[in-house]
Amino acid sequence: MKTSLGAKQPMLYPTPVMIVGTYDAAGRANAMNVAWGGICCSQPPCVNISVRKATYTYGNLLAKQAFTVNLPSEDNIIVADYMGLASGHSADKFAAAGLTAVQGEFIDAPYIEEFPFVLECKVVHVAELGLHTLFVGEIQDIKVEESCLDEEGRIINSEVKPVAWLPTDRKYYTPGRDLGKAFDIGKAILRG
Amino acid sequence: MKTSLGAKQPMLYPTPVMIVGTYDAAGRANAMNVAWGGICCSQPPCVNISVRKATYTYGNLLAKQAFTVNLPSEDNIIVADYMGLASGHSADKFAAAGLTAVQGEFIDAPYIEEFPFVLECKVVHVAELGLHTLFVGEIQDIKVEESCLDEEGRIINSEVKPVAWLPTDRKYYTPGRDLGKAFDIGKAILRG
Repeated sequence: MKTSLGAKQPMLYPTPVMIVGTYDAAGRANAMNVAWGGICCSQPPCVNISVRKATYTYGNLLAKQAFTVNLPSEDNIIVADYMGLASGHSADKFAAAGLTAVQGEFIDAPYIEEFPFVLECKVVHVAELGLHTLFVGEIQDIKVEESCLDEEGRIINSEVKPVAWLPTDRKYYTPGRDLGKAFDIGKAILRG
Repeated sequence: MKTSLGAKQPMLYPTPVMIVGTYDAAGRANAMNVAWGGICCSQPPCVNISVRKATYTYGNLLAKQAFTVNLPSEDNIIVADYMGLASGHSADKFAAAGLTAVQGEFIDAPYIEEFPFVLECKVVHVAELGLHTLFVGEIQDIKVEESCLDEEGRIINSEVKPVAWLPTDRKYYTPGRDLGKAFDIGKAILRG
């Protein structure tokens, strides 16, 4: 038996922790914790982020049509959280958080040197949905910290130390118990 | 020092496990594991999902302009994985998985009785991105299994038993260690 919660508080879990890097018109680097976003197309590879018009990032996205998505490791989680509390309108968030802004290789946006995983993205689609505007970026490159890759170039989760955000209790979590391989453990039902 | 992986394999972690429920033109219920999606607007509350044109769900979305998003608990993970392996073109996935399709209350789409958390959604925006088409749904209602709510109507994570998918190693995980409160642990930097 299910209980209706209505639709006032949109909720879906888990959610990745995405820090969006942009330059303003004067070339000053900013970073923001966007709360909502994820991959939205495999070919061409695209990622979506949602941003409120009131944010400093919104103006930067329109000016530069480019952004990075930076995924924190658990070691970066306090600075990642800070990026969702302060605003680029009044703060130099890179300086306050003690982070290094590196010019993107393929786009006019900065990435965070201290974070293990970066997507460089070019804006290809914008949709005004209401409080949030959805931006789709085509991924130009994925950059991963060298120490997080094995000899075959595969990502080592125990080095990346990924973090999930659960909107249900508004807390950050590491991955826990391994429940099995995706696109694999369901094969038992497929075979009948 | 970062290594470029190029952009061939879009990756971002963690990713929610989203099973999308739709009816076909004849009213037959289907469910699909969509891989990519998430919340994209707070007001009005909206969720995005990405679907390939080749899927049965794609035609259903165009026909009915409605869908549910069903989040599995860890107890549902094998049937959730199956929903990404079989196709509604050739299989009755609800029957094969032994799941119950319930007519949505506010939209013409079915939800999965056995899953703890459901969003009922009306399509409000469609964007052709390439291999995937992005559908934005406005959330009409959120339904949660009664046993997963406390007396104040808050979600009990230990009852919902949420699952994350990590594209980095293509495995499902439970939440692990608690790293602290979102929009809170960064306040130490805000205060300087």
